[in-house]
Amino acid sequence: MALAHPNFIGSEVDSSVMVSSESPINLSQDELKKIAAYKAVEFVESGMVLGLGTGSTACHAVAKIGELLQQGKLKNIIGIPTSKKTHEQAVSVGIPLSDLDSYPVIDLAIDGADEVDPYLNLVKGRGGSLLREKMVEGACKKFVVIVDETKLVNYLGESKLAMPVEIVPFCWKFTAQRLELMFEEAGCVAKLRKVGENGEVYVTDNGNYIVDLYLKKDIGDLKVASDEILRLAGVVEHGMFLDMATTLIVAGKLGVTVRNK
Amino acid sequence: MALAHPNFIGSEVDSSVMVSSESPINLSQDELKKIAAYKAVEFVESGMVLGLGTGSTACHAVAKIGELLQQGKLKNIIGIPTSKKTHEQAVSVGIPLSDLDSYPVIDLAIDGADEVDPYLNLVKGRGGSLLREKMVEGACKKFVVIVDETKLVNYLGESKLAMPVEIVPFCWKFTAQRLELMFEEAGCVAKLRKVGENGEVYVTDNGNYIVDLYLKKDIGDLKVASDEILRLAGVVEHGMFLDMATTLIVAGKLGVTVRNK
Repeated sequence: MALAHPNFIGSEVDSSVMVSSESPINLSQDELKKIAAYKAVEFVESGMVLGLGTGSTACHAVAKIGELLQQGKLKNIIGIPTSKKTHEQAVSVGIPLSDLDSYPVIDLAIDGADEVDPYLNLVKGRGGSLLREKMVEGACKKFVVIVDETKLVNYLGESKLAMPVEIVPFCWKFTAQRLELMFEEAGCVAKLRKVGENGEVYVTDNGNYIVDLYLKKDIGDLKVASDEILRLAGVVEHGMFLDMATTLIVAGKLGVTVRNK
Repeated sequence: MALAHPNFIGSEVDSSVMVSSESPINLSQDELKKIAAYKAVEFVESGMVLGLGTGSTACHAVAKIGELLQQGKLKNIIGIPTSKKTHEQAVSVGIPLSDLDSYPVIDLAIDGADEVDPYLNLVKGRGGSLLREKMVEGACKKFVVIVDETKLVNYLGESKLAMPVEIVPFCWKFTAQRLELMFEEAGCVAKLRKVGENGEVYVTDNGNYIVDLYLKKDIGDLKVASDEILRLAGVVEHGMFLDMATTLIVAGKLGVTVRNK
């Protein structure tokens, strides 16, 4: 698929580039994710230390980076995976890996998001990797977020889907209740994440649980909300990524948009 | 040992009560800890839900509560232990136990501290149980802190002993470096806690590591420092207990002091 070069007009300015090689109306959500991912990979240069995201969109970027390495179009890449799953995928496609302990500064990270607001604040972690993603993406010079257009929201929580919070297993009910109470005015319902047919408790790569917050209304000032959540003993991390994304790539039925913060 | 009743004169007022039954000068540090602990147990009433602290001072309180239950002088006590170790001790002395999930509001907690500043802010966690202690003691109506006089400081960190931070094991070096950098101006040195002859990494009840911060100077505004630490992805909790203690009991060579906030 031929994609135009990124078109950075400047801060807070959108630029749309039509996808020209096929009828856009026929693209599936997964194809849109792939378009956004491939667009992001255009930012990758040989010699970079790269944060490798987790999830259905990021995995297209990881696959593409592996392909470019194999073709010799990229060289000397070091990948820093944000989950065990991405670690495995990166190994399978031949990306040399390391970690934050060895590379505390990362040139560029590419990752998906569950929600993106107009200020490029994100909700992440529906895939369960929020903590490692936040550690890696907090250490990046550039953080490119790749989404299909269904992920755009007017305010975080608007999708009515989960806002994840990673908590320690010890007295998780107590912590979940406290979180629900914290956002009572926004009609918050807190649910322990479960998986599989038997409804087993989901355990993160760090041995913790996830409580998903479902909000009926806007929670207001996100930085205030963030600090309030983090101050609650028992909380390890939350899925709001505030002021972290530097570039947003959105793939929609009508084209791909690149936006810098 | 005969101890006078607690003497609450009011907020921010000290009241000293001499220990009368033996020559104060001969008391060991452990005896002083016991005096403070026994004094705190005078606040316990039948029917209370009690937060049970961890450490060399708190264990005297736990033992005493068990004794009073056995003598029938206390009844219908429910203990909420702050560590696996305290859980074991409480079981051994016959205190019925539960947890925060079942009792989200606690009447009274009794626990030691590693440092206490003039505003009753604490450093805790040199025993490694800071997270569970903070969860339990954050859910208390009253939190009585018991220390011997060596724990009093003018500002947190003044003892030059550890200010503990519980962190996830994933890329702990990176997190430790970030913490060191955060308090660079205070001459911070961050060390991973190790134990035993072979220097194995200390693992908390929650499966995490502890990084101990050693500070050469005052870190300034504690609430600002607290939020800054908690905002660092990879940090689970820190050992500063700010605005949590409601009563301080200090045992010193010259007597026991009870102070309310």
